[in-house]
Amino acid sequence: MTTETSVMRSEIGEQPAALRRTLEALLPQTAEVAALAGKTRQVLFVARGSSDNAAVYGSYLLQAHSGRLATLASPSIATVYGAEVDLSGVLAVAISQSGRTEEIVDTMNWAARCGARTISVTNGDDSPLARGADVALLTRAGDELAVPATKTYTAQLAALAVLALGLGADLDEAELRAVPDAIEETLAAPTDALDEIVARLAGVSGAVVSGRGMAFSTALETALKLKEACYLHAMGLSYADLLHGPLAVVDAQTPALLVAANSGPTLPGTVALAERVRAADAPVYAIGGGSALAKSSDLAVDVPDLPEWLAPISLIVPAQLITERLARAKGFDPDAPRSLNKVTQTS
Amino acid sequence: MTTETSVMRSEIGEQPAALRRTLEALLPQTAEVAALAGKTRQVLFVARGSSDNAAVYGSYLLQAHSGRLATLASPSIATVYGAEVDLSGVLAVAISQSGRTEEIVDTMNWAARCGARTISVTNGDDSPLARGADVALLTRAGDELAVPATKTYTAQLAALAVLALGLGADLDEAELRAVPDAIEETLAAPTDALDEIVARLAGVSGAVVSGRGMAFSTALETALKLKEACYLHAMGLSYADLLHGPLAVVDAQTPALLVAANSGPTLPGTVALAERVRAADAPVYAIGGGSALAKSSDLAVDVPDLPEWLAPISLIVPAQLITERLARAKGFDPDAPRSLNKVTQTS
Repeated sequence: MTTETSVMRSEIGEQPAALRRTLEALLPQTAEVAALAGKTRQVLFVARGSSDNAAVYGSYLLQAHSGRLATLASPSIATVYGAEVDLSGVLAVAISQSGRTEEIVDTMNWAARCGARTISVTNGDDSPLARGADVALLTRAGDELAVPATKTYTAQLAALAVLALGLGADLDEAELRAVPDAIEETLAAPTDALDEIVARLAGVSGAVVSGRGMAFSTALETALKLKEACYLHAMGLSYADLLHGPLAVVDAQTPALLVAANSGPTLPGTVALAERVRAADAPVYAIGGGSALAKSSDLAVDVPDLPEWLAPISLIVPAQLITERLARAKGFDPDAPRSLNKVTQTS
Repeated sequence: MTTETSVMRSEIGEQPAALRRTLEALLPQTAEVAALAGKTRQVLFVARGSSDNAAVYGSYLLQAHSGRLATLASPSIATVYGAEVDLSGVLAVAISQSGRTEEIVDTMNWAARCGARTISVTNGDDSPLARGADVALLTRAGDELAVPATKTYTAQLAALAVLALGLGADLDEAELRAVPDAIEETLAAPTDALDEIVARLAGVSGAVVSGRGMAFSTALETALKLKEACYLHAMGLSYADLLHGPLAVVDAQTPALLVAANSGPTLPGTVALAERVRAADAPVYAIGGGSALAKSSDLAVDVPDLPEWLAPISLIVPAQLITERLARAKGFDPDAPRSLNKVTQTS
C-alpha cells in the first residue's frame, strides 16, 4: 500500500468536525421543520447521485420511524416530460451538495408549483436550492474539493436524521449527538482488515454490494464510490433484489461486500445472505454487522456500536477509506476520476 | 453461434399471443379500475425483481400521463420493520409473476391495513395476490417455465398500460392494441446486429445499461437479465445517475448498452449520452432510438415504431434475445441459471 495521500483522504478525516458543526446548526431547526411538515402528509425526495443514496436512507428512516410515506421522485417527470402531478399534501425534500444542479433545482421548483411544500438539504449556503425552499437545512461540511462526495454525504445523512426528529420520529436526539464521536473512533481504528479487502478488490473486475433497510443506502453509496473512483464493476443491490436474480452473478472472482448495523432487525437477514453467498463459493467481505456477520464473512471491518437508525452515517466511512486506498492502489487519482466534474449538470 | 434452443427462447416467441390474451382480458376492466382509483389520490407500487422493473415503467407512465404521483414502496418497511405508515388515499399496486412471493403478498396486505386500496398484477390466477386484492389484473401469459421472466414481464407492462387507461391517462387505447403486432415484427426482424452485439458482449466482463424515462425500466430489466442468465457484471443506471458519477466506469472493455424509443422527449438526451460514452472511447450498442441513436452507436438493433409510452414493451424483446443467445454462447443454460428458483421467497 502506497503511503501517498489525497484531498479525498483529508476530507474523510474532517467528518467528525463537519458532523458536529452540522448538528449544532440544524438541531435548533426541528421546530421550524415540524411547523412546515404539519401542513403535509408524506415526503418525496428529489436527488441524484450520492444525494440520491442519502435520500434512500431518509426514505427508510422516515417510514420506519415517523409513520409517513416517504419515497423518491423521478426528476425527469418534471424536467423531460414536463408533466403536472398533484403534489398537494407532499413535503418535497431536495438534496444536493452544491445546491446548483439545475435538474434538482428545477424539480424542486416544479414540486412547489404542483402544490408541495419544500425543504432543501444542501452544503451550498447561497445556492438556488437554499434560497428557493420553504425551509433550508444547510449542512456545514465546509468546501469539498475532491470529486467523490464524502463529508457532504454524511452531513446530508445527519440533516435527514434531524428532519426525522422534526417530523416527530420515535428517536432519541442524544443518540444522534453521539455520532461524531463514533466516526472519530471509526477513523482511529486499525486498518488491517480494510487493507486486506483493498488488496483483494484490486484483483477483481466486479463486486456486488448489498445491505438491507437503512443500510441499503450504504450499499448503494459504496457501489457508486467504487464505480466512480476505482472503475470497479460494482453492483449495488438490495438484499431481496439480490436473492431475486443476481445472486447468480457472485462467484470466486465476484465477491460480495455486505454492510449492516451491529444490531437491529436487518442483521439476521444479512447474515443469512452472507451464508448463501459463501455457499456459492464467493468471498464475503463485511462492514459492520458485529460478530454475527464477521463469523459468516471472509474478512470483516468492525465499526463502533450505533443504533441501527444511525449506523449508515458510520458504515460508509470504512467504504470511503476502501475506495480511496483502492483507487491509489490501482494507480488512479481518487480526487479527480476521469470524465467527472464536481457539479454535474443534467437536464 | 450455436443453433440449439431453449425454453426461454420459446417463451420469448410466445409474447405476441400472451399480450393479445392479456389485453383481451384486461381492457374490459378499465371501468372497475377507474371506480377503485376514484377513491384514491396516488399510486404506490409493491414489487421485486423483474416485477420491480415493470413497476418503474408504471411509475413513469402514470406520472407522465395521468397526473398522479406514482412511486415505489420499500417492502422491508412492512416485512422487516413492521412499521405503521399512513396510506390513506393510496392505491397500492402489487406486482408478482407467481402471486406467491410472500414478501409481496405480506406487503400488499400491510398496505391494506395501513389504509390503502389494492390492485394486484399477477400471472397466478389462483394465487394469494390475486385473491387478496380489491381488483386483480390477471395477466394471461400462460405458464412460464424458464427462470428468467420474459412473457410474464411484457404481460405485466401491458397490464400497467391498462391501469393507466383506467386511471384516465391521456393515451389512446388503439395504440396499445397494436403492440402485439409490433412485437411479432420485432421477433421476425433480421438478427445480424443482435448477433454481433452478443459476440462482442461475450468478450467483456461488464457493461453499463442505461435508458431514460419510460425506457429506464428496460435498462434495469436488461441489466437484471444479463446478470442472472449470463453472469455479466451489468450495471443498470439512469441517464442522470450515469452522468453523476459512474460514467467513469465505461471504457473499451466496458461498453454501454443504451435503450430508447424511436421518438419522444428522452431521445435527444440518450443520443447525447451515446456521444459522451464514445468520447470516453467506450463502445455503444443501441436498442431502438431510431436513426438518430444508430448514428451515434457502434451497433444498433432496430425496433418498430411505437409511441414512447408503449416502446418499453417492445424494447425489451431484443434484450431478451441477446440474453438468451449470450447465455448459450458462454456455455450456460438460460433456462436454469445457477443459484435461482422460479419463485423467490424473501422475508
